[in-house]
Amino acid sequence: MTESPAPGPGDAPLDEDYRLAAVDLLGAIAYGELSAWERLAADAAMAPTIEDKMAIGAMASAEFAHLERLRDRLVQLGADPAEAMGEFMEGFDQFHAHTAPSDWYEGLVKAFVGDGLAADFYREIAAYLDADTREVIIASLEETGQTAFVVEHVRAGIARDHRLAGRLALWGRRLMGEALTQAQRVAAERDALSSLLAGGVDRPGLDLAALGRMFTRLTERHAQRMSELGLDA
Amino acid sequence: MTESPAPGPGDAPLDEDYRLAAVDLLGAIAYGELSAWERLAADAAMAPTIEDKMAIGAMASAEFAHLERLRDRLVQLGADPAEAMGEFMEGFDQFHAHTAPSDWYEGLVKAFVGDGLAADFYREIAAYLDADTREVIIASLEETGQTAFVVEHVRAGIARDHRLAGRLALWGRRLMGEALTQAQRVAAERDALSSLLAGGVDRPGLDLAALGRMFTRLTERHAQRMSELGLDA
Repeated sequence: MTESPAPGPGDAPLDEDYRLAAVDLLGAIAYGELSAWERLAADAAMAPTIEDKMAIGAMASAEFAHLERLRDRLVQLGADPAEAMGEFMEGFDQFHAHTAPSDWYEGLVKAFVGDGLAADFYREIAAYLDADTREVIIASLEETGQTAFVVEHVRAGIARDHRLAGRLALWGRRLMGEALTQAQRVAAERDALSSLLAGGVDRPGLDLAALGRMFTRLTERHAQRMSELGLDA
Repeated sequence: MTESPAPGPGDAPLDEDYRLAAVDLLGAIAYGELSAWERLAADAAMAPTIEDKMAIGAMASAEFAHLERLRDRLVQLGADPAEAMGEFMEGFDQFHAHTAPSDWYEGLVKAFVGDGLAADFYREIAAYLDADTREVIIASLEETGQTAFVVEHVRAGIARDHRLAGRLALWGRRLMGEALTQAQRVAAERDALSSLLAGGVDRPGLDLAALGRMFTRLTERHAQRMSELGLDA
């Protein structure tokens, strides 16, 4: 829980457009974390051993714990958390429906690559928000301890069966493509978020060139993650 | 985490039969909590609203948090937690396979009635264990805040559609029957647990009459829970 009573950037009161954009972003992240939690729990059902099930359960619980602060910040901004989250339900649910893992390894890669991409994207956007909201967002994106677990298990799987590398590399590309499709669709529908990114009278924004650079950074980090797993991006 | 270095009852070293029985019981409870966590997460997917999903997620996380201390105690008793839990996988998995909820309400009743029954049973058995193990078990059975949520939602569902009461009453009976079937099967297979309950040279046990009284208490508490939900037992 943050103690700060001032919800705005600096000491200025929040203008309504800005407030709506912050609520949108927090709602998107919160619903994303809730659906990531559900997905991790479903992955646990595919875990080959009880140790793996426990490890996935611990990650899922860490993911769920992040939700609390996002919800508090939404309430501070005068929003109904469930309503703010509900706006992004369709986009995330579509993403998950189109990328249902067919086995344990696809689930692991999705958790690592999907969460990593989402976290990079939110961190980029958080730079355009007030300090309090930014801090809540950054905290909600903390590592849930999954990197080491996923890297170790995926690499071990590939060592046992080399064909897995080709299948998982294709899977990583599909995840990236589907994430971009849904992100673009959501951005096009959410005016407040788009105008936040475009900037305002007293706020810097992203011009097309800056958007392009952001996209380059996101794809570079995606490629780094794939290579950590021993996969071609 | 308990600080106590002495794993046994009082200061006496543990005899091997006793240790095996304690490991069995802790393994059963731990696997039961892990599978309860998985089942709650699957219920969340059926939740009609985002608020309901969040409420179920919070219960599931509380359930998962209990696992930590059970696991620590298993390690203190010289057991491999995953191995101890694995002995009970089939029994619990069969129970869940035979009682897969067909909707949100059946899931709620199962979480409440099933967890309640299991908790009552473990509390009864914990009375025959050393103080340290007993304390870990009692703590692991703490309320996860689900009672009020389940009672409110099931009662509201029945108020909207009276036919639901008949269907859920039958469902409660089926849960009880299936739980007894699996519990008896597991008890018959686990010699250490059975001999713990039968008592030893320097430990009191349960004779047939005491077992009968325990069974009566368990069914009475089950009937109380059903009536809290507004259902016939």
